[in-house]
Amino acid sequence: MITGKNYIGNDLKAEGTVTFKTFNPKLHLDNNTLFTEASDSEIEDAANLAQEAFKEYAKISGNERAVFLKAIADEIMALGDSLIDTYMSETGLPKGRAQGERGRTVGQLRMFANLVETDNWRELKHDEAIPDRAPAPKPDLLKMLIPIGPIAVFGASNFPLAYSTAGGDTASALASGCPVIVKSHPMHAGTGELVGSAIVKAAKKTGMPNGVFSNLNSKGIEVGTKLVQHPKIKGVGFTGSIKGGRALYDLAAKRPEPIPVFAEMGSINPVIITQNALLKRGSEIATTYAGSITLGAGQFCTNPGLLLGLKSDHLSDFITELGQKTIENEAQCMLHPNIQHNYIKNGAMVSSQNGLEVIAEYDQVLEESYAPSKIVTVNGAVFLENPKLHTEVFGPFSMVVQCDNEAQLLEVIANLDGQLTGTIIAEKEDYDGLGALVNTLQNRVGRIIFNGVPTGVEVCESMTHGGPYPASTDSRFTAVGPDAIKRWARPFSYQDFPKELLPEILKE
Amino acid sequence: MITGKNYIGNDLKAEGTVTFKTFNPKLHLDNNTLFTEASDSEIEDAANLAQEAFKEYAKISGNERAVFLKAIADEIMALGDSLIDTYMSETGLPKGRAQGERGRTVGQLRMFANLVETDNWRELKHDEAIPDRAPAPKPDLLKMLIPIGPIAVFGASNFPLAYSTAGGDTASALASGCPVIVKSHPMHAGTGELVGSAIVKAAKKTGMPNGVFSNLNSKGIEVGTKLVQHPKIKGVGFTGSIKGGRALYDLAAKRPEPIPVFAEMGSINPVIITQNALLKRGSEIATTYAGSITLGAGQFCTNPGLLLGLKSDHLSDFITELGQKTIENEAQCMLHPNIQHNYIKNGAMVSSQNGLEVIAEYDQVLEESYAPSKIVTVNGAVFLENPKLHTEVFGPFSMVVQCDNEAQLLEVIANLDGQLTGTIIAEKEDYDGLGALVNTLQNRVGRIIFNGVPTGVEVCESMTHGGPYPASTDSRFTAVGPDAIKRWARPFSYQDFPKELLPEILKE
Repeated sequence: MITGKNYIGNDLKAEGTVTFKTFNPKLHLDNNTLFTEASDSEIEDAANLAQEAFKEYAKISGNERAVFLKAIADEIMALGDSLIDTYMSETGLPKGRAQGERGRTVGQLRMFANLVETDNWRELKHDEAIPDRAPAPKPDLLKMLIPIGPIAVFGASNFPLAYSTAGGDTASALASGCPVIVKSHPMHAGTGELVGSAIVKAAKKTGMPNGVFSNLNSKGIEVGTKLVQHPKIKGVGFTGSIKGGRALYDLAAKRPEPIPVFAEMGSINPVIITQNALLKRGSEIATTYAGSITLGAGQFCTNPGLLLGLKSDHLSDFITELGQKTIENEAQCMLHPNIQHNYIKNGAMVSSQNGLEVIAEYDQVLEESYAPSKIVTVNGAVFLENPKLHTEVFGPFSMVVQCDNEAQLLEVIANLDGQLTGTIIAEKEDYDGLGALVNTLQNRVGRIIFNGVPTGVEVCESMTHGGPYPASTDSRFTAVGPDAIKRWARPFSYQDFPKELLPEILKE
Repeated sequence: MITGKNYIGNDLKAEGTVTFKTFNPKLHLDNNTLFTEASDSEIEDAANLAQEAFKEYAKISGNERAVFLKAIADEIMALGDSLIDTYMSETGLPKGRAQGERGRTVGQLRMFANLVETDNWRELKHDEAIPDRAPAPKPDLLKMLIPIGPIAVFGASNFPLAYSTAGGDTASALASGCPVIVKSHPMHAGTGELVGSAIVKAAKKTGMPNGVFSNLNSKGIEVGTKLVQHPKIKGVGFTGSIKGGRALYDLAAKRPEPIPVFAEMGSINPVIITQNALLKRGSEIATTYAGSITLGAGQFCTNPGLLLGLKSDHLSDFITELGQKTIENEAQCMLHPNIQHNYIKNGAMVSSQNGLEVIAEYDQVLEESYAPSKIVTVNGAVFLENPKLHTEVFGPFSMVVQCDNEAQLLEVIANLDGQLTGTIIAEKEDYDGLGALVNTLQNRVGRIIFNGVPTGVEVCESMTHGGPYPASTDSRFTAVGPDAIKRWARPFSYQDFPKELLPEILKE
């Protein structure tokens, strides 16, 4: 049952006066539950509990944390259809997607459990003493990663499970030994509360300290603002828009004690297609990309929003075919009317720029909240001159940039903002000439995909989900995969420590 | 020969109009060379050269970078006595210190050379493709660390070699594949130019791209400000005061594209001494600490500025003895009259606070620039109430805080700002009761030393030189040891890459 209350540690509380409901975009109706935004004193209580919990939680063994993380996964599965139904009612996303995302979420929790069952992630290092070294003796030094403190997590609108309440940020922070306070996303507060209940149940069952997790409802920006400014919060994880992520980054940087913010933000994910690839399999690429552009109503941070090629008849044919195939795909419901309105607004703004040509636009009658897909094209020179054309249009929208020559293509790439991904579609005979392209693209992105689509972020060791700003606020970290834990840990050195006082892990 | 010019890449330039001289604090006289501050166009040229150099430098093999780093070390040694003499004339520090610091500097360069000779530091990871996985195939993914781009390095006043022009920040950035632009410290611009000449010579000899290194003179804050704001600079390394580091951090955070700043800043390095330790070896500890406090005129970031113990006769006796022994040590020349003036001013400010008692102060007649050592004491309750008492007094100054009981001692520690180090002086019979102290202290520091002194930062794998703010701007990194390279590197993923296009390292 969804109560509409906040989890302040293990307790459900609703002292505040601001209330709101979530929205079912398919039915175009409010959902029933009335959610109460966390009050100032509830935020304070959550922060105090988190700080107290940190003292104990930071010290328990990796095995115990692993048991906790696995219990969260089990409790999420135990929510059964109520979670899937709530998810669907708050997002308009289909059942298969809900189940798939749940699978990804529990998979991530178990991955981090496995990671911290051994202490390899702590990067243990040891330098032995050399007491008779001249001119000064060398001390004995041991080093390992330790957690940095309570983390505030801001979930994504487009991934109510895998990048939200018990998503990658929460899972990695809890794995490292950091308590988590989630600022629940207002569009899926019910899904958030259910997942929160699973975390709290797991925490109680496995004997975790009260305050290791809290879940705060919020209607506007106030709760998040107060959380990031709270002196007991020591780090922030965020997935969402550039505007939102940058605002939190700025707040954190202005604190008397600045704290790290890892915000994974916007991206238009450039895709470069060579002439040879267009010649050999232009039609196949058009089909694949029409599917990638419209997948999930284009509501992915790795959605291919920008295709690049050299001006030619092949490219013209490809653009026409891509347009047709894109709008042939059935239109899909977006997460929320606000997101649909922004999609329409941003798409129109970009389309109205000088030199931009609309190739195809979905023109069948649509229910409210549904997104009409759109393919546009522009010349390289025009694209280079007008930064508005570089804006992310979150939804099933893509722009093909037609470049005069390779030099211009490279210039376009070099002048892009930082991106999560870049993709190269090429043939074997192109490889010899791709060095400059790979180098230029690498400088702007966190991951390059070869002959594939950027959508689909594999959860594994070798994944980088991040990239130069504004893809993320700190390109030195990844939001996906085991290394995501490094965002919440710091090295600590024990010099000439008596064995009795070392943590168990370092006693060997 | 010192020209007073800037290295803009490989070329000596002095287009600017602002000039200055360095100062010999022992002779209390200006040194001869007239230095010219870098002009705006020189800053621009250095940044453009660095960005161009980055394209090539990021791609060369680790072996080639290692050869370059070792050549820098050799060229620094080849400067011979001219470097040592210049160092002494610009700092007032003795010859042994100059030679020792030079040894540390070339040692660090060689350590980073060894580190990048193999590619282990890149944290290579591989996930193999599973083409027939359901519901979607798993791609092949390879990941490794790559350099982030040109780095601006701000050297320390108190380490003209090891934490300056070719110090740890420069060595680690060059090792990672990042070009470096040094904002030379105005107090030792001559030492900086000589070391810069060694780097440029090494770069030419080993065929490094022009712009891999530049050295900019500066009199005030303008050059540094412009450098940190320059869009082609992608990271900042700084060692110095809280005020200076925070200013750069704020500038970097306000950029359209924020960049990481690792600033290693102030610290008062608390030392906790148990009753048993005072009882058994109070006198010995007083001798050791009188030495540590006055070492190098107290001009170390790990200088023990704060001693903590429980109120008792033993502690009183210890304080008296520490005071006597401290002022028995001969006074030493500080780096610059400005530093000496600040020392006197800050020491007087702290000493004038209510409840503070001056135990001993060096009272012999001193030459200009020399620092009179000083030991003061205060009660725990007074210390807790007055944040001014937590100020770092950079120099041979230390405060002993007398706590009423263990609870107050822990409260004092918990309320300290972040610190580079904490030290515990204790006897075996204390160990069982030290858990809470270790936990509380660990939360405030980057390293705990047992029964030693905080001064002396071993350059090794297990060293953490950093800590919670304001010890550093990002506790997740260290400024010393091989891991310092991680400040300048980001993970990058290659998905389904053809072998031909992978970097050599990943071809296996």
